[in-house]
This record gives sequence, C-alpha cells and structure tokens, in this order.
Amino acid sequence: MTYYQKLEQHAKKLSKISHLSAICSWDQAAKMPEGGNAARSEAMAELALIHHELATAPSLTEWFARAETESLSKEQKISLQEMKRSWQNDNILPADLVEKKSLAGSKCEHAWRTQRKENNWHEFSQNLEAVVKLAREEAQIRAEATGLSRYDAMMALYEPGMTCEKIDSIFGQVKTWLPALIQQVRAKQASDQVITPKGPFPIAQQKALSLDIMGKLGFDFRHGRLDVSTHPFCGGVPTDVRITTRYDEADFTSALMGVIHETGHARYEQGLPEQWHGLPVGQARSMGVHESQSLFFEMQLSRSKPFIEILAPLAREAFDRNNDKALSTDNLALFSTRVEPGYIRVDADEVTYPAHIILRYEIERDLIEGKIEVADIPELWDKKMTEYLGLSTKGNFTDGCMQDIHWTDGSFGYFPSYTLGAMYAAQFMAAMRREMNVENLIRERNLQPIFNWLDRHVWKKASFLSTDNLLKEATGETLNPEHFKAHLESRYLED
Amino acid sequence: MTYYQKLEQHAKKLSKISHLSAICSWDQAAKMPEGGNAARSEAMAELALIHHELATAPSLTEWFARAETESLSKEQKISLQEMKRSWQNDNILPADLVEKKSLAGSKCEHAWRTQRKENNWHEFSQNLEAVVKLAREEAQIRAEATGLSRYDAMMALYEPGMTCEKIDSIFGQVKTWLPALIQQVRAKQASDQVITPKGPFPIAQQKALSLDIMGKLGFDFRHGRLDVSTHPFCGGVPTDVRITTRYDEADFTSALMGVIHETGHARYEQGLPEQWHGLPVGQARSMGVHESQSLFFEMQLSRSKPFIEILAPLAREAFDRNNDKALSTDNLALFSTRVEPGYIRVDADEVTYPAHIILRYEIERDLIEGKIEVADIPELWDKKMTEYLGLSTKGNFTDGCMQDIHWTDGSFGYFPSYTLGAMYAAQFMAAMRREMNVENLIRERNLQPIFNWLDRHVWKKASFLSTDNLLKEATGETLNPEHFKAHLESRYLED
Ligand SMILES: [Zn+2]
Ligand SMILES: [Zn+2]
Repeated sequence: MTYYQKLEQHAKKLSKISHLSAICSWDQAAKMPEGGNAARSEAMAELALIHHELATAPSLTEWFARAETESLSKEQKISLQEMKRSWQNDNILPADLVEKKSLAGSKCEHAWRTQRKENNWHEFSQNLEAVVKLAREEAQIRAEATGLSRYDAMMALYEPGMTCEKIDSIFGQVKTWLPALIQQVRAKQASDQVITPKGPFPIAQQKALSLDIMGKLGFDFRHGRLDVSTHPFCGGVPTDVRITTRYDEADFTSALMGVIHETGHARYEQGLPEQWHGLPVGQARSMGVHESQSLFFEMQLSRSKPFIEILAPLAREAFDRNNDKALSTDNLALFSTRVEPGYIRVDADEVTYPAHIILRYEIERDLIEGKIEVADIPELWDKKMTEYLGLSTKGNFTDGCMQDIHWTDGSFGYFPSYTLGAMYAAQFMAAMRREMNVENLIRERNLQPIFNWLDRHVWKKASFLSTDNLLKEATGETLNPEHFKAHLESRYLED
Repeated sequence: MTYYQKLEQHAKKLSKISHLSAICSWDQAAKMPEGGNAARSEAMAELALIHHELATAPSLTEWFARAETESLSKEQKISLQEMKRSWQNDNILPADLVEKKSLAGSKCEHAWRTQRKENNWHEFSQNLEAVVKLAREEAQIRAEATGLSRYDAMMALYEPGMTCEKIDSIFGQVKTWLPALIQQVRAKQASDQVITPKGPFPIAQQKALSLDIMGKLGFDFRHGRLDVSTHPFCGGVPTDVRITTRYDEADFTSALMGVIHETGHARYEQGLPEQWHGLPVGQARSMGVHESQSLFFEMQLSRSKPFIEILAPLAREAFDRNNDKALSTDNLALFSTRVEPGYIRVDADEVTYPAHIILRYEIERDLIEGKIEVADIPELWDKKMTEYLGLSTKGNFTDGCMQDIHWTDGSFGYFPSYTLGAMYAAQFMAAMRREMNVENLIRERNLQPIFNWLDRHVWKKASFLSTDNLLKEATGETLNPEHFKAHLESRYLED
C-alpha cells in the first residue's frame, strides 16, 4: 500500500466516525427526547475525542512527507493537498487550547441562552471576553502556521483563499451603494398593497407542500429526509442528507422558504461526486459556496416571479384556499420580495441582509486583530446599525450584539460566508443566463437544465478547485460583486 | 486511580460507543432512507471495530488481575465480576473466527431474505451449514473457557446461569401437559362467538391510542419515544429508549399489543438504576428477564380481563366506533385470548408459543452438540410440529424451519429466553398477587403499585443478582414453571 493509499484509508475512517456523529447530532436536534441529552452529549464528546486522537495520530506526519514524494495522478495530488489541509487544521492547536476553547465556548453559549433573553450584556460580555482571548490565541497560532493575517487564518477554516484584503474591497463597494439602494427599494415598495397571508395553515398541509416542492427541486428522497427541529439545518452525509424546518401555523412562507433553502444545501451534498465520498477533496468547497447553493435555490430561483407562478397555485391547493387573495401569484410575489430593515439578521430580507453581515465582519475582524475590545462592541453595533439600516440598538443587546450564536463558541470568521454565498449565487445565475433562458425554463416547468448546470459546475467539482478557480471555470471570472448588485437592482427596482 | 476505577472508566467509554451505535441502529431501522444503507453499514462496522479494539485491549488482563486484589465494596465486587464476564465474552474468540462468523452470518442472512420467499431450503442449507460449523467452533471455545457444555456456553451469552439440564427438566414438564392443554382450550373456545375487528383503522388514530396506552403504562416520554419500523424492537439507551411498532390498517390489535410488549421492555430499561448506567452491572439481567417484563406487560397485564375493560372503551373512542360490537369489552377479551395452533412463531398466542420454542430448543441444542446435522432439520421440524401442534410442515420450509432470522447469523442459544421470560413473568405475577389484589388495582386504574413492585424487585436490581437469586428474592423460589401452567389454566380454562 502506498502512503497516499494509507492516508486515503485513514481519511475514510475519520469520515465514517463523522458520519455517525452527524446522524447522532441530527437525532439530538430533531428526535431526541429532552431527558436523553446529558448521556448523549457525553457519548458524542467521547466520539469527538476518538476522532481527534485519530486525526492527530503522530504517524501522519511521516505519511504526508512520504506521500508527497509518490507518483500521483492529478486528482490524487489535489486530494492529498486537501487531506493535508484538513490534517493541519486539526493539528495546529495544542490540546490544552482546544480543551480551554471548548470549555469557554460551552460556558458562554449555555449562559447566553438565558442572558440574551434578559438583555444581560454585562455578564455575557465577561464570558465573551474569555472566548475572544482564546480565539485570539488560536488566530495567532493559525496565522503563524499559514503565513496569513490572524483574521484571514480564522476565515480560512470556512472560506479558504478568502482574505480581508478582498473582503474589505468587496464589502467596501457594497457599502457605497447599499444604503441608497435600500431607500430606493423602500420608496418603490411604499405604494405596494401587500396582503400578509393569514393562518392557521395546518402543519400537515405545510409538510405536504414542503415535500412536494422538495421533489420538484430534485431532492433525492432515497438519499435524504425532511424533519422538524427548533433551528433548521442541513445535516447527515451525502448518501443520507437530513434537512429540517420549523413550522409556524400562522405563516407558511417561513417554513417553506426555509425548506427550499435547505434543499439547496442538500442538493449540493447529494450531488458531490460519489467516487470521492469520504475524502476531504470530495467535500463541499467552502461554507460560502455551500450558502451559494442554498441561496441560489431560495433567492435566485424560488423568489423569482416565474417560480412564484409555480408555487402559488400549489400553495392554494395545499391549503384548500382557491379564493384567498393573499395566496395569489401577484401577492405572494410581492410578499416574498418585501424589503424592510430590521434588527434581526436571520429574519432579514435579501436586500438588507448584507448590511447585517458587513457590520459583523467589521467588528469581528477588528476584535480578532486586537484593534477593538469586547467592551467596544455595543457602541459599534449601534453606530453601524444606524449608519447601514437606520436602526439604533442603544441599550437593546437582545436584538443587537447578543442575537447570534456564532461568537459564543468562538466561530469568528464565519459571517462573511453568508454574503459571499449570496454573491456567488448571483454570479452563477448571471453565467447560467448566458447559456439558457432560465425564466422560460422555469415557466416550462423544466428545471433539469438548471440543476444540471449547478451539478456540472459546482456539485461535481467538490473541492477539486479553489473557490477562485471554481468561479472562473463556471462563470469566466473570479468573484465580481456587480452581479449581486445587478440582481438586486433588477429584482427590486425594475418593472 | 485504583484499577477498579480504571476498569469502570473503560467500561463507561465502551458504553458511550454502544450508545451511539444503538441510536444509529435505531435510525437505520426507523428513519434512514434506503439509499443511505451502504455507507451507514460501513460506518457502523467501523464503530464496531473501534469498540472491539477497546474491549480487547491487552492491558485489561492486568487491570482485572490487580482490581481483584483491591479492597472493594460489595456492590463494586459484583460490578467487577460483571465487567469481567463481559470482557471474557468479548475476548474468548480469536479475531479470525469473529470475522469468519460475521461474514458467514451476513451472507446467510442476506440470501435467506430471498430464499425464504422461494422456499429454497437446498441453497439456504448450504449457507446455514457454514454458519453452524463456525457456531460449533465458537461453542467449543466458549465451553473450554467456561467449563460449561457447548450449548450451555452459548446460552450463557443470553441467559447466564441457565443450563440444558434445567431446561430439559422444565421443558420436559411442559411437554407432558401442553398438547393436552391446547386441546382443552380449543374445545372450550370452540363455541365462542368472536368477531374479528374490521378495518380500516387509520394509522394516525392507532398511533394516538398507542401513545395514550404507553402513557398509562408509565412510559417516560422524557426518556424515550415511539416510532415505526418493519420489525418492531426496543432499542436506544436507558436515558433514551426507542421503541418501534408497525401499523396495519386492517388490524389495530397487532400494533397495539406490540407497543404494550415493547413498553414492558422499555420500562425495564428506563427503570435501571441511574447510578450504575454505563456499567455492565447496571444493565438488564438477561434476555429472559427482559422478555419477562415485556410479557408481563403484554400477557399478564394487558390481555387480562380487567385491563381489557380499560382498553376497549379507549379503542372505541380512538376509532370513533362507539357501537362496533367487535370493540366491545367482551369481544376484545375473547379476541385477545384466542388460541389457535399455527406455523409461525411470531404470530403464535401465549398458549401455543412454548411449543414453537421447545421445538427450536431441541433442534439447536442437538445441532450445537453435534448430535444432528443441518440436513436433519426439516424432518425433525415436521415431526415435532406434528407432535406438539398437529401441523405438518413437510415441504413447507418458508413457514417451517426457514421462518426465523436467529440461526442465520449464528445466534444459537437465544430461543429459550422467550419461554423462560413467559415463565418468569407468570412467577412474578403470582408473587405480586400474594402482596396485593392486582385485579382490583387494575379496575381502580391504579397501576402504580404494580409498577413499583417490578421496579423494586426487577428493574432496580439490574445485574446485581443472578437470575436464580433475583427470582428467589422477588418470589421466594427459583424458576418454577408451575406458575406459568397455573396462569394458562386459570386464564384459558376457568370461568
Ligand atoms: Zn444556509
Ligand atoms: Zn420482546
């Protein structure tokens, strides 16, 4: 057996452990009764430990050195490189820092669940300071090992190849036009007569509609399922993708759009190349590319007028409301593209969402680079919210800087992926439109060419290309935020 | 840390791995989409390998030797003994035999799923011969290590302390009265006018009724749940017990009685002493004792007249059939205690069931001891079925010697546990009746004293007592099959 083969076998072993961990996490979120949690958490921690021990086995250093001298195919070379990247990510941090991080993160997150409700920034900030201190240590170690800046080294965990330099430039451009665009859209929508659909929308019917739409969007039910959890997610493994949603009897659109979003994530997973399952190179390219697929399905595809023309009659039929004007195609189209600045990121529409991300990015970048401290966050948050969205969060920590879970466990560097995903999605759509008449295809109920394009250009590429090259091969250029701007202008300012 | 403590820590680690394995097995049977199976099976096999490597770690030999010289409490001594028993069971077989067994078992079971339908004994018997050959090797090794006979050594995996000598005596007694009893019951029931409940019984209503009855039987939904699978089972872990059933629109009683049966298994698991969770001594005593709890709930409790008085009105209400005579208390009582010899063990009633078990026991005992060969099975099966139940299986392998899954993967020694469980259950009920008026308690809807008795005498004892001593402490005597006989006579021949 060659060293490359030994490394492949080892990576597949790790992947099998991750498989069971993913299924048990899904179960914990979607099925497990409350009283099972303590023992389950301990069992999961044990499996994580076993994974970590295997992932950091001392023999791997030599295996990688030797494998690099072996004669490998072009694909194997990239596979080796991705295995090495994954191994380095797992190995860089000293064990005691990993443990301290885990403890501080659990403590901060656990307390946050109560403190957020109580608007208790004072106590929360003390836990967060501990988390930030360790995140800075982590960033320093990762920076030294990779030659990147501290924040770039953190971002590389989620969005390899992305740097502050690029993001500052991209987000900088967005900031020049976004606040004005929001105002224009608001002005244009001011005269729209939008009817909010009125519940109850029985959950059984919402579920049936969700499954129907998932089917139409090509979700493969032989390799996945839909369930319910408090916080919707896409989990499981490529051969068995578990997506979840949360139904609200008063509003069917939130669950439905959530299901469509997760279906985008799911199709990426289900579409990954089978012959590379279980290896790092066979995984999704990055969090941003993953989000590009969910946002392609949710934003580019499903909130488009021609798709609403498919969706609206199905909704009227599902809820047996043939004469409900709120479920007319025109009204649902208006309702699905309504723009309104708000405090909460996860509730934000497509137009105001980037403002939430830019704000978080600017704060967490400076926090990790040591330019600001935890104590500075509330004021900065208020200032930026006011500047970008015209909303003050003074004294309102609950709906301000305490609303997200990401920082509580030290996941700094993740936020940009959301907006990068929206931009990649717009760029994919622009490229696709050059090859086919997407609107006509949707009107003809012929979505297959659209899925085929994504499958060929994104899903089947897995991690064989850098994000830059993936974009270049698929769209002819690296990330160009103009496509996102054009998409927003076209959807929200034209016609 | 003492060696005893090291062993405890090690056992808990193994238990955490088994925890995740149990949840993923449940998922595989109850939730997993078909296309997830191949990767899941591989992932589960990897976890089993990790478990096996830990369970057979070379250092354990010394740890056990040293722990035995340490000063331990009485409970710790029993705990140590149970850890050692578990360790020896896992360690006795050479690795290549374990692997050969696993391969031959998978092959035989996989082919059996088709061969049974095709009545193809000829090809099945060739696979079974390979399985039996390896099972005999296993039995020989286990016999040498334990000083037991070969079949006893196999049975010790499921029913420690039980021997052929005892079973031959017990089953021998049963054979003297069972065929005549069956005839008497049949004669008595001949004039009964029983109406078979007619479907459809909508699954949603069956499920609601099942959950209601589970609640009344004390199932703790904070620590467990009910789902659907092709083959009903009780899985999961004590803090999170997963039971399953299979609904049939045409017949609500099969799923309901199945749910009640699994609820008995579940309450045993949920009732195990929390402070010993994760250690061998904290587990259920044996397969037979486990089955005694499910059969106590299903047979002793739920098919009793006073319980049917609770159940029948709930069923009428659940299915909105207030005037359906088939759901009258009297009819459901008759229907739930109908006795009819049949070919299929899993469909058998309480009275004929032991005949199916005795037949299998006699055959598998002689097979493992080398007194008969696989080729002899069909003739023996036909002869014994004719003798015990008056039914010939000549040429009918599908409903004869090919009906069970147990032998396909070499689980010889398991079958007696079913009938031992029925006998333990009858003996528990007889003892309970000496302390309280069980029928009155049921009529008063006051089941708590019944559950308390089981909790005190069985559930909380976990594996601290041998089965003999558990029975003696709970009932004043070791296994006495007269209680089972008296139960059958009282229920089926009196009034
Ligand atoms: Zn997403
Ligand atoms: Zn059972």
